Amino acid sequence: MSKDLVFDYSHALGFMTKEELMAMEPAAAAAREKLVKKSGAGNDFVGWVDLPAEIDMEEYGRIKKAAAKIRSDSEYLVVIGIGGSYLGARAAIEFLCHSFYTLMGGTKILFAGNSVSTKYLADLLDVIGDSDFSVNVISKSGTTTEPAIAFRLFKEKMEQKYGREGAAKRIYATTDKKRGALKALADEEGYETYVVPDDIGGRYSVLTAVGLLPIAAAGCDTDALIEGFREMRELCMRESFVNNPAMLYAAARNVLYNKGKSVEVLANYEPSVHYIAEWWKQLYGESEGKDGKGIFPASIDLTTDLHSMGQYLQDGQRILLETVIEVGDTGREIICKEASVDTDGLNYLAGKNMDFVNKAAMNGTILAHVAGGVPVLKVSIKDNSAKTLGELFYFFEFACGVSGYILDVNPFNQPGVESYKKNMFALLGKPGYEELRASLMAAING
Amino acid sequence: MSKDLVFDYSHALGFMTKEELMAMEPAAAAAREKLVKKSGAGNDFVGWVDLPAEIDMEEYGRIKKAAAKIRSDSEYLVVIGIGGSYLGARAAIEFLCHSFYTLMGGTKILFAGNSVSTKYLADLLDVIGDSDFSVNVISKSGTTTEPAIAFRLFKEKMEQKYGREGAAKRIYATTDKKRGALKALADEEGYETYVVPDDIGGRYSVLTAVGLLPIAAAGCDTDALIEGFREMRELCMRESFVNNPAMLYAAARNVLYNKGKSVEVLANYEPSVHYIAEWWKQLYGESEGKDGKGIFPASIDLTTDLHSMGQYLQDGQRILLETVIEVGDTGREIICKEASVDTDGLNYLAGKNMDFVNKAAMNGTILAHVAGGVPVLKVSIKDNSAKTLGELFYFFEFACGVSGYILDVNPFNQPGVESYKKNMFALLGKPGYEELRASLMAAING
Repeated sequence: MSKDLVFDYSHALGFMTKEELMAMEPAAAAAREKLVKKSGAGNDFVGWVDLPAEIDMEEYGRIKKAAAKIRSDSEYLVVIGIGGSYLGARAAIEFLCHSFYTLMGGTKILFAGNSVSTKYLADLLDVIGDSDFSVNVISKSGTTTEPAIAFRLFKEKMEQKYGREGAAKRIYATTDKKRGALKALADEEGYETYVVPDDIGGRYSVLTAVGLLPIAAAGCDTDALIEGFREMRELCMRESFVNNPAMLYAAARNVLYNKGKSVEVLANYEPSVHYIAEWWKQLYGESEGKDGKGIFPASIDLTTDLHSMGQYLQDGQRILLETVIEVGDTGREIICKEASVDTDGLNYLAGKNMDFVNKAAMNGTILAHVAGGVPVLKVSIKDNSAKTLGELFYFFEFACGVSGYILDVNPFNQPGVESYKKNMFALLGKPGYEELRASLMAAING
Repeated sequence: MSKDLVFDYSHALGFMTKEELMAMEPAAAAAREKLVKKSGAGNDFVGWVDLPAEIDMEEYGRIKKAAAKIRSDSEYLVVIGIGGSYLGARAAIEFLCHSFYTLMGGTKILFAGNSVSTKYLADLLDVIGDSDFSVNVISKSGTTTEPAIAFRLFKEKMEQKYGREGAAKRIYATTDKKRGALKALADEEGYETYVVPDDIGGRYSVLTAVGLLPIAAAGCDTDALIEGFREMRELCMRESFVNNPAMLYAAARNVLYNKGKSVEVLANYEPSVHYIAEWWKQLYGESEGKDGKGIFPASIDLTTDLHSMGQYLQDGQRILLETVIEVGDTGREIICKEASVDTDGLNYLAGKNMDFVNKAAMNGTILAHVAGGVPVLKVSIKDNSAKTLGELFYFFEFACGVSGYILDVNPFNQPGVESYKKNMFALLGKPGYEELRASLMAAING
């Protein structure tokens, strides 16, 4: 068992029996075997399983050096990427940094290329203005539309400001090892490059260069992040079902799914966890949402959304399963004080840490939701350190692989992502899509 | 029909017939009648229906004056509120302001009291530091735990900096007209006060003082916002079913719900719409999620999440209904340029506005999702102006009232929100909750 991450299914036992959960052991063990032996569906993309033990230290050294340079010469780092080339870094930075890190000193990390909003990109160009900046462009192929468009803009802005040679020293490309448009451009221009591995899909890539460079540039402790990632890998490999939080989580959500829980709501009580939930939604939605199957992943920020989605959670359609992420120590303290006149009636909290109030809200809510008909699973992590986050990342990745195999899907492909792209290319008039274009235009025009 | 807001159900017609939609007319008409005549369930809380015609111009004048003062004397405005006292203002500000408004000049609006995270509040206190700031505390009772705790902290900080009298000139209280803890404190201290009406619930309150003061303080055009709100009210009152976008939207989602579409995903293609989706989730989740019924409201930002939730939308469980918000003109332009060497293969877009790419992505995605088994509804708004936003707000509110009555729930109560509060009070040791506390502690300790 880990001391840093504890999985608790006790609040779901009114909705499944312990026997039903334990009956999942053979399926979970078979799933783990497929991951470890690389013998299951999608086995070309399970490089992340052993990644913690195989991090390329030469490249990691270059990442740390680049991060230090960026922090010394750039007010902004624009990270250009979408999906897995965006969410992992964002999740880590929002979790580990100051809640308002873009308003504090130091290099500000801003994200681009994760949509095609003109307003967003034009506004981002405004913000950067004449400030010193660097760019980390992340794309395996270099031709994905969203990041490619954004990169053209920022490359142009940078070459105008620093000249072509100067720009080449401020552009960092994370891309394919050997081929592709971005790799070719980077070699020609002399950009520093880092590798998106062939055997790791985007949503499992946070501890490759894809995530590590932006996270390091934000000033986070990537050594500790990697250490936690390694420790959780060892635990997932070693522990038997009953002591294995990732296998238990995978098993529990499948038992509940089979009982009609169609939607899993990931709940947090710390705003800093918000983007971990976004990362988690990609991980689970993209791994399991196929063949007409899979739990629909949603997320809520609490107690914020208890005054929004709270009513639905308590009394709406009983198709929900809730998974709570509890963060132990956030390293900050605010003690509630006694007021001379107790107008707001809060004096009964005097002397208590605000965290105590937050934990009471969490425990009270869990019990209320269980009483209202929602099974609750809980993932408690010790603190908001980089090491703990590394453990959490691996926990969710490993559990997702196991869960997908139990569900009997290929957790490592994403065939559905191509559908919108093909249609978009056709509507944009991209050469080679003429036939599809004609049929789509007919559909649009009725 | 409105020229500024168009509702399109054509992409859902493969999943419901036009006859099925039209058969909803009597139910929708009866629901509208209940709203307008204030004769339905929860009729004590339908003050928002006529709000556009009844805005208190004396108070509105004071709001505009206060906003001007805040903009002249404060680097930060801390808006303290939760649920409906948070989401409406946040939605409007994020939609109408610069995408990075906290990094640009002018008064920065930051939000507090919408969670009990120690880290968030301590970090927020850091950010404000020694800067000049004002506070707008929004709470009908003044005793809701989250905002009350935050207000104590910022009141203390302000009195330390400006003295008690100086602080009283920088604290703006939006609260009950006559009673409650915050009203009493405001009268005693001499705070400027604004009214949370008795007959308008939080989630319908964005165009009361609750939303108007923060929105005005952010520099947005509240006159235009109100104008749009008024125009859409007239349209909703006047138009028959087939020309009434709010009634059609309410009807369509109920038809699809009855066919097993349990989850509605609100999708946008502009990051600035993100918080409108959060506001919408409260509006619909809290109004309809009761009695074991109601569509579960979720949201996605596209094309961002096409590389995350996109796979699920395309191929996961077919329990989804998607509603797209299309923003016409965002007032910004970026023209794609021709590159001398077409490494990334984007030259076929040369000369096109980036918005053209975004719209192609939207249209391509709609067709892909329909082909994949997801009915799509579309709400197209003309631009991202304040007037259009006023229309959108009223459209969603009116549609929600109609939809809730069709579903046969009381769309204006939220009994489930009390459940977590009671448990929280008991676990916090609040006097009067001793018996509940004993039973909850037993449940927690197994």
